[in-house]
Amino acid sequence: MPERDLQYLADLAAQLRVDSVRSSAAAGSGHPTSSMSAADLMAVLFACHYHYDFARPEDPGNDHLIFSKGHASPLLYSLFKAAGAVTDEELLSFRKRGSPLEGHPTPRLPWVDVATGSLGQGLPIGVGIALAGRLERLPYRVWVLCGDGELAEGSIWEAAEHAGHAGLANLTLIVDVNRLGQRGPTRHGWDTGAYARRFGAFGWHTIEIDGHDPGQIDFALGDARNTRRRPTVILAKTRKGEGVMEVENREGAHGKALKDPETAIGELGGPREMTVEVHRPEPGTEAYRFGGGPLTLPEYAVGERVAIRTGYGEALAALGAARGEVVALDGEVADSTRTQEFATRFPERFFEMYIAEQQLVAAAVGLQVRGWIPYAATFAAFLTRAYDFIRMAAASRASIRLVGSHAGVSIGEDGPSQMGLEDLAMMRAIHGSTVLYPSDANQAAALTAAMADLDGVSYLRTTRGETPVIYPPGERFPVGGSRVLRHSPDDRATIVTAGVTVHEALAAADELAGQGVSVGVVDLYSIKPVDAAALAEAATTTGNLITVEDHRPEGGLGDAVLDAVSELGPRVVKLAVRDLPGSATPEQQLADAGIDRHAIAEAVKRLL
Amino acid sequence: MPERDLQYLADLAAQLRVDSVRSSAAAGSGHPTSSMSAADLMAVLFACHYHYDFARPEDPGNDHLIFSKGHASPLLYSLFKAAGAVTDEELLSFRKRGSPLEGHPTPRLPWVDVATGSLGQGLPIGVGIALAGRLERLPYRVWVLCGDGELAEGSIWEAAEHAGHAGLANLTLIVDVNRLGQRGPTRHGWDTGAYARRFGAFGWHTIEIDGHDPGQIDFALGDARNTRRRPTVILAKTRKGEGVMEVENREGAHGKALKDPETAIGELGGPREMTVEVHRPEPGTEAYRFGGGPLTLPEYAVGERVAIRTGYGEALAALGAARGEVVALDGEVADSTRTQEFATRFPERFFEMYIAEQQLVAAAVGLQVRGWIPYAATFAAFLTRAYDFIRMAAASRASIRLVGSHAGVSIGEDGPSQMGLEDLAMMRAIHGSTVLYPSDANQAAALTAAMADLDGVSYLRTTRGETPVIYPPGERFPVGGSRVLRHSPDDRATIVTAGVTVHEALAAADELAGQGVSVGVVDLYSIKPVDAAALAEAATTTGNLITVEDHRPEGGLGDAVLDAVSELGPRVVKLAVRDLPGSATPEQQLADAGIDRHAIAEAVKRLL
Repeated sequence: MPERDLQYLADLAAQLRVDSVRSSAAAGSGHPTSSMSAADLMAVLFACHYHYDFARPEDPGNDHLIFSKGHASPLLYSLFKAAGAVTDEELLSFRKRGSPLEGHPTPRLPWVDVATGSLGQGLPIGVGIALAGRLERLPYRVWVLCGDGELAEGSIWEAAEHAGHAGLANLTLIVDVNRLGQRGPTRHGWDTGAYARRFGAFGWHTIEIDGHDPGQIDFALGDARNTRRRPTVILAKTRKGEGVMEVENREGAHGKALKDPETAIGELGGPREMTVEVHRPEPGTEAYRFGGGPLTLPEYAVGERVAIRTGYGEALAALGAARGEVVALDGEVADSTRTQEFATRFPERFFEMYIAEQQLVAAAVGLQVRGWIPYAATFAAFLTRAYDFIRMAAASRASIRLVGSHAGVSIGEDGPSQMGLEDLAMMRAIHGSTVLYPSDANQAAALTAAMADLDGVSYLRTTRGETPVIYPPGERFPVGGSRVLRHSPDDRATIVTAGVTVHEALAAADELAGQGVSVGVVDLYSIKPVDAAALAEAATTTGNLITVEDHRPEGGLGDAVLDAVSELGPRVVKLAVRDLPGSATPEQQLADAGIDRHAIAEAVKRLL
Repeated sequence: MPERDLQYLADLAAQLRVDSVRSSAAAGSGHPTSSMSAADLMAVLFACHYHYDFARPEDPGNDHLIFSKGHASPLLYSLFKAAGAVTDEELLSFRKRGSPLEGHPTPRLPWVDVATGSLGQGLPIGVGIALAGRLERLPYRVWVLCGDGELAEGSIWEAAEHAGHAGLANLTLIVDVNRLGQRGPTRHGWDTGAYARRFGAFGWHTIEIDGHDPGQIDFALGDARNTRRRPTVILAKTRKGEGVMEVENREGAHGKALKDPETAIGELGGPREMTVEVHRPEPGTEAYRFGGGPLTLPEYAVGERVAIRTGYGEALAALGAARGEVVALDGEVADSTRTQEFATRFPERFFEMYIAEQQLVAAAVGLQVRGWIPYAATFAAFLTRAYDFIRMAAASRASIRLVGSHAGVSIGEDGPSQMGLEDLAMMRAIHGSTVLYPSDANQAAALTAAMADLDGVSYLRTTRGETPVIYPPGERFPVGGSRVLRHSPDDRATIVTAGVTVHEALAAADELAGQGVSVGVVDLYSIKPVDAAALAEAATTTGNLITVEDHRPEGGLGDAVLDAVSELGPRVVKLAVRDLPGSATPEQQLADAGIDRHAIAEAVKRLL
């Protein structure tokens, strides 16, 4: 590279440092030192290797850049300024109320794919985007900037394994090895070899460089772009706070605006107004998409015994045939979740994520960045492993569909480790989420199809055992709705439930009817949003509600009902799983948890 | 090893296989094939290398064995039978209602340290027990049996990194590489070299063997015991279902009782009644414990502004001085969580877990296995990363204390990625959990101390900013209690809140009082168990409750209140964080979320 270019890159990096210091100073907080360590890396990337049209963030040919070290947002925004995407005034609105230049990047900015700031998430999401690129037969590259501290996160190694084994050559990880974490030195300090051995073992091409040498950086980025069959990691030795004596390579300088920004800016050569011309992608690139057709959902005859998870699985396969954008992912349990049918029929659009639930959800987030409609399934219990990714998916405004099978004690003998008993609470608390819990296979099929068009994080809770089909095929189950399954003017109480316990409630209602006690039954298949009108109706008509759920008493269906009806003051009895189950048959489990037909009938009688 | 001994070991392994087949056949379910692949490994371990006194499971000299592949429970129980700890009749109660021989192991059996069955957890928990062994200056060994499929879990690599870097030579991982997962082949099949390269890169001593050769197994286990300065992984190539034609090395044979158990038992040489004499540990070993003294909690003057997290941090340090069993762990943010003071004063009892929240919680679980009293802290938001470990800790009947700092929007500028807004929902849903949310530093200190004696999973939610001290030092705050902060017979409504919004509620009450509207204020510092009596009192006196929480509206304080008072039919208005925050000052965040003093006063006025 000619000296003139090297000088330009050094100057550009200095400007990025200056602007990181300035924006953090204006905010009075932020992470300038973590931005300064990576400034040279990003200057060279933007000037020489990144392909992106800032005027057309939706261009399918654009590269993708994920700042996994989201706290280095001052650097990202300084890059956007240098690229002409934000003004200096906007830059200085950093971290202020209403500014899209938040403390950590979010997709409020059109050039940001996903929210970051929970460390260790950028690489697994990048794997998802890289998988999308392969599916779309597009040449775009995925660049992920990580800190060294976040390499301690297990999710990094789930991603390293997936990318290495899948040979995702379109993925490059750039690690800013500045050796200092928040509290103190990282485990490996500047030993980039330690990281190289690890990534190398996972099948990656590894490059160790001086992260402040533009020539070395340029060579490494070019090497990454030229490498076939393997992802590349660039391990760049850097100094945190590079270029400013007050903070350079010093502990205790994490996550603070500089004390003396003016001096710092002086040391860095003062403010500059350089621009960087980012290469645009080839014009006219188009993503490959799979064809579709009419949607023909599976149909189950009323009275037949079919597992709810089967309704999901067969509907997903039908959806796959109808809509080419639908993709499916599974955590090595597709035979159990019933994602298997999709996998068999559409192998190219099925992703086996193995037993790595964080990568499972992250890949779904990555795929939806590129417009795919992902369904990700595993046991409901094991989605807890990915809760931070689900939480961040909401911050990313991502539309992903999660399916948790084997919910509740009704799985039977396997015991508590396999029982999803906290999933409704976990999923309800997610911002903007939709939580669905079908009670028969036809309903599951209808809701599975409905999820394809939902925004945000949606969740389908399925159960293991076979349950009777109670709804005829073809019925509509709007999100936010419910179904009245038993109702008479004589009702003295209403049982509100969903999923497997709907059948217990119906049996209890029949048993009580035989004893001259009339009770209503509501199938609350949409736990969030909840059908407040129907619940209010039930609450005011009988004044007595019994909620039943194969879930912990906290945060689930019962709490959703209480929230909807509290102002109406009905008496509410909540039946839920209060003890720690052991092994037993599904029927015994429901009985032991006090949520089977007999327990429900008893509760009604006690209440009246 | 003499031929006679090899023959004994082969016969013992055959018996373990037969008993695995028998117990699964009696149950009609279970994982015999995953048991059979590891039978030789465990036969040799029990006969030659394991040190354990089955009559004294509490013996501090005992080794620890964790079946991370918990689905291989038939093998574990068959080992217990061979060791004389369970009878054949008990063995055949496997998976039946009431039997402690559950589908996956739990500490209902005295020889089981922790519940397993969520894959990838055994090794990180084993790291915690190995750290305890070092702290206790005891020579016991920790043996972890893993499947190959679970090596895809990131938590394995968090543990590999921690153990490798800490040089935990007392830890041995035995991987049963049977090449078949649940749905199909694993990523690396029988390529034990792929795993060896990975563990080797993380600093482990690696041994690759034929997992059905007793001599090789014995040599490898001896090698592990003799290895200093490094943990050892034994990568054993095995065949799933080894020894039975119906299932050996076949796909589709996961997690099912054998179709023809009689033929299988015949192939395996028929039932046997062999016993294994497990070596006992050296008698009279005693764990080193640190001294203690009187507890002197920090004291803060009423009116002073102190961060609640500081109350926790200084109380934890005081507790460390008072009780030698207290240990602390942190996820590389001890300066923020304020675990730092403990770390400085008691470096030997402080564990820096780096940015690896699953390992953070798992190590706490492991340490409590050996009687330590662990406190594990990170940002509340990042505890979501460990939700599966927290869920399983409850199944393990583990007593761990979790501390989540930087809860809620009140952190200010950092934005949603750093805000714990789902943590109350997540923690309330955990079986047997305690959820505490202090509003000032003295209360935080008192609750921190109280947590030391709590059973089960307990959680302390702390906030970032400084808040006024409102309680004099030395007051008692019983778990399950609450505090009435404002109350008069004229009250027309009661505000129920906790944490940072207590101060907003007090300001709102003052503002309203100035306008002639009297409202009560309850500090509900114990979210679970909740003070139902005090809430009922408030609900019946005024009939109007306003709940306020810096948390999502689902599953948190508001839902806890609704659950407690629903039958009394008060009108309840729930103020909570309903939108997705951006960056802003703490005051602006509280206002934008509608949970600051003005929003509370407005809500009261609307309600009345």
